[in-house]
Amino acid sequence: MTYKLYYWPSIQGRGEFVRLALEDAGAAYVDVARSPGGMAAMTRLLREGSPRPFAPPFLQDGDRLVAQTANILFYLGPRLRLVPDDEGSRLEAHQIQLTIADLVSEAHDVHHPIASGLYYEDQRDEAKRSAAFFVRERIPKYLAWLESLLDRAGGRFVFGDVVSYVDLSAFQVLAGLAYAFPNAMAHVEPKVPRLLALRDHVAARPRIASYLASDRRIPFNENGVFRHYPELDG
Amino acid sequence: MTYKLYYWPSIQGRGEFVRLALEDAGAAYVDVARSPGGMAAMTRLLREGSPRPFAPPFLQDGDRLVAQTANILFYLGPRLRLVPDDEGSRLEAHQIQLTIADLVSEAHDVHHPIASGLYYEDQRDEAKRSAAFFVRERIPKYLAWLESLLDRAGGRFVFGDVVSYVDLSAFQVLAGLAYAFPNAMAHVEPKVPRLLALRDHVAARPRIASYLASDRRIPFNENGVFRHYPELDG
Repeated sequence: MTYKLYYWPSIQGRGEFVRLALEDAGAAYVDVARSPGGMAAMTRLLREGSPRPFAPPFLQDGDRLVAQTANILFYLGPRLRLVPDDEGSRLEAHQIQLTIADLVSEAHDVHHPIASGLYYEDQRDEAKRSAAFFVRERIPKYLAWLESLLDRAGGRFVFGDVVSYVDLSAFQVLAGLAYAFPNAMAHVEPKVPRLLALRDHVAARPRIASYLASDRRIPFNENGVFRHYPELDG
Repeated sequence: MTYKLYYWPSIQGRGEFVRLALEDAGAAYVDVARSPGGMAAMTRLLREGSPRPFAPPFLQDGDRLVAQTANILFYLGPRLRLVPDDEGSRLEAHQIQLTIADLVSEAHDVHHPIASGLYYEDQRDEAKRSAAFFVRERIPKYLAWLESLLDRAGGRFVFGDVVSYVDLSAFQVLAGLAYAFPNAMAHVEPKVPRLLALRDHVAARPRIASYLASDRRIPFNENGVFRHYPELDG
């Protein structure tokens, strides 16, 4: 069974959390919108898919269509063996993933504080104000919370020594924040040593390392969620 | 088994989506932070609970602790018989709930575009700019999408004629938006007749009607997610 992932073809964005899970598992998948005719297929499903997605990413698995990043990962987790099998762990992984999703939304809203439909350049002053709070209060709070989960788990990953999709997502958030806010992260990173070790463990996993070195990994850029605008990285 | 819900005691906020599900099901529950000593218990669980919540609301069911609003409803749905029983429907309900959660976050960020840690009064000008986009572009887009789900379902509710927690949440969003943006909603409402009918069906359900008339229903106010600031309702 080949999974079909639908997401914007030129950014990592929210789709990257799904790509990382599929890549780490060595799953067969097509990144549809990056293939010929794929954008038209994605647009059609946004209009006619069932259940109808509100926005990309969404995943097609045979007849099943699943949208919302965290929901896709909840669905894929057991199928890709990227989450422990009991209900408690699946709910816990999902709870963490949803909190990571909140952090991702906040990271996006820093460069689009007024409206996602406006250009960055038309809300740059507000973005500067917003970024000061985000880097001073929100990044440290979220990362300290993730660090505390690792402290309790006592292993390399959130569930101890077995990797889950949550760890892949934590890696992605750390990579994205370091790209967008290198100065701010240089101050925060020393306070979250377990999280940095997790990031390095994930990056060194053979399939992830191979993916990151491939042209399937779209570079970070200023159309995605994590954007590097020096004026926002105080 | 009595559920324990932990949420801020003086606002509807995100906790209200859980309250509505528990109330509609006639479930036994305690709204802990509204009871003596409850705030201290909530604070303790935010520090020491496992899995550790990032923020309220969270739900305790015996030994199990579940956080993140949509995750709580995903957990409660089958237990309260507020979602069809098959995996496809449960994923679909969750996908819709997560999209409603996105709308709720955007509704919050309209009055806090710069930072959630700043007072509204210190970001009012930015909020005015943000609100113009939210009421013109985002409310119509989200509500049209919900309306299209009802169109396809062909019944009173998202899953046809059987109510689900998603319908209760759609009711809450419509009530909240009408409180916060009465002028804007007066323009949008005629375009979403099925959604308005759903809202009325939910409000008329005996346990919901009784809840809404009780003092367990905290009135909307300007500390919650949905706030009425006339200057934002163009």
